[in-house]
Amino acid sequence: MSVLVVGSVALDTVETPFGRAEEVLGGSATYFSTSASYFSPVRLVAVVGDDLPEEELAFLRERGVDTEGLQRREGRTFRWKGRYGFDLNEAHTLDTQLNVFEDFSPRIPDSYRESPYVFLGNIDPELQMDVLNQVKGPRMVACDTMNYWIEKKPKELERVLGRVDVLTINEGEARQLSGEPNLVKAAKKITSMGPKTLIIKRGEYGVLSFNGSSIFATPAYPLEFVFDPTGAGDTFAGGFMGFLAYTNQVDEDTMRQAIVFGSVMASFVVEDFSLRRIKALTMDEIEERYREFKKLTYFRDIG
Amino acid sequence: MSVLVVGSVALDTVETPFGRAEEVLGGSATYFSTSASYFSPVRLVAVVGDDLPEEELAFLRERGVDTEGLQRREGRTFRWKGRYGFDLNEAHTLDTQLNVFEDFSPRIPDSYRESPYVFLGNIDPELQMDVLNQVKGPRMVACDTMNYWIEKKPKELERVLGRVDVLTINEGEARQLSGEPNLVKAAKKITSMGPKTLIIKRGEYGVLSFNGSSIFATPAYPLEFVFDPTGAGDTFAGGFMGFLAYTNQVDEDTMRQAIVFGSVMASFVVEDFSLRRIKALTMDEIEERYREFKKLTYFRDIG
Repeated sequence: MSVLVVGSVALDTVETPFGRAEEVLGGSATYFSTSASYFSPVRLVAVVGDDLPEEELAFLRERGVDTEGLQRREGRTFRWKGRYGFDLNEAHTLDTQLNVFEDFSPRIPDSYRESPYVFLGNIDPELQMDVLNQVKGPRMVACDTMNYWIEKKPKELERVLGRVDVLTINEGEARQLSGEPNLVKAAKKITSMGPKTLIIKRGEYGVLSFNGSSIFATPAYPLEFVFDPTGAGDTFAGGFMGFLAYTNQVDEDTMRQAIVFGSVMASFVVEDFSLRRIKALTMDEIEERYREFKKLTYFRDIG
Repeated sequence: MSVLVVGSVALDTVETPFGRAEEVLGGSATYFSTSASYFSPVRLVAVVGDDLPEEELAFLRERGVDTEGLQRREGRTFRWKGRYGFDLNEAHTLDTQLNVFEDFSPRIPDSYRESPYVFLGNIDPELQMDVLNQVKGPRMVACDTMNYWIEKKPKELERVLGRVDVLTINEGEARQLSGEPNLVKAAKKITSMGPKTLIIKRGEYGVLSFNGSSIFATPAYPLEFVFDPTGAGDTFAGGFMGFLAYTNQVDEDTMRQAIVFGSVMASFVVEDFSLRRIKALTMDEIEERYREFKKLTYFRDIG
């Protein structure tokens, strides 16, 4: 099954304690697409400026990502500049230039409209709603958001939440959105707003997910070398949705597997700047790391 | 098998967003003993003042804790006063009165000296060393410490580390002790100082443990009501050591089970102030929660 993603394509400049990368490919839709493409066909909706060399995106098409929905506009591509300290959990934004993203209006090509799996990347909730109004009877819609939209457009966000199945946000955002410091209580509030499933991303601490009455926790993979956490959340979401679309199942056990595949993909992306590490993985590498997650979390039953 | 614990018995005054408890029983050795007593006989070494009513500790003896090593001295019992905000991960110490703990010198009764499992609670590393010099051929020694000792007595702490099998500390302390922000690297450095096993306590994020080349991660139990995190680390250590002493095995699989039992005990203790919740648990409750941990972390294999 196909996965439709709407989000950003960006040029990022990133500083970490381990180095610097200048104007490298980034953006939520880029990370998501690359990650999901290991599992399912992906349909990309985003906008780039005329300054992004065509060949920068060639690898996406080679990976089976449909770019019919990628608008190319006059002007500069969205730019983000950020820095991480030794605490790689938090990005400090140094500069944001929306450029062509400023008046991005997602148009969903006819060939995309019946996509059964839809991911609304972290963009203005009004645009997320536009997308929902253009797609036809998706089997599952997941959505991301951030503190900015929770503050600035709570009503619009609430309307979106009323129409999605899965929300993927980080811990601080879950607390902010619900007004509840306790995550179990936060999850109850948030799932009462619409999404049946809440996936809380906790960076190096992994994922805590609430699906009906079931709670699933999985750690992040402990890495000795973390170069750049940029895009980890979208890469997670790509692996998660890509795997669900591949199996075309959304039961609890499959969701848990999808969360682990998402965590696997995220564990790769942080090993290098930009998409370098996940541009050319093998399924063997991905499955091997899935098995590592199994070993990492195994403990004996007491019967 | 028996577990020997050396640490503090205290009277705590604790404020959390959910209430306040005044002069309630606390201290590392108290939490540890109570928790370990569900699995194994415990031998307690600590000091109290003449202001601690005898009946406050009666439940320990009822739970099979040997208190021959509990010194009773003229003066006041150790007092700690702390506050937690909504972020229950961090205690803000408001007041510490060492009182009789100030010149505590652990004397290990003859009947305790051959204890096969020994836990050195978070006290002055010189006192920890005193204990090590009094015990005879323990099968496993675990030890806790804190930022204060890492700063003030690094040499003394290093000597202790050279003689212990397991170190249980929190994340910040692991980083501080090793000078490494990355926990995998930190673990390599710390295990090269002596302990074969490093157990990193991450509060609401669970535990990350390094044992030789094996890494184990387990989440904390997601609770809807967390009243008071005081003592969670020592309660964890009590469950961990108590279970190891019960099985008298220290292989990887048993260590992992012990870590989960430790996490189970910690998940109970935070549900109420002081030791209220863990004073009178049943083995059924403990095993039931162990099974909940299994469900919480289960995901399907890919074969």
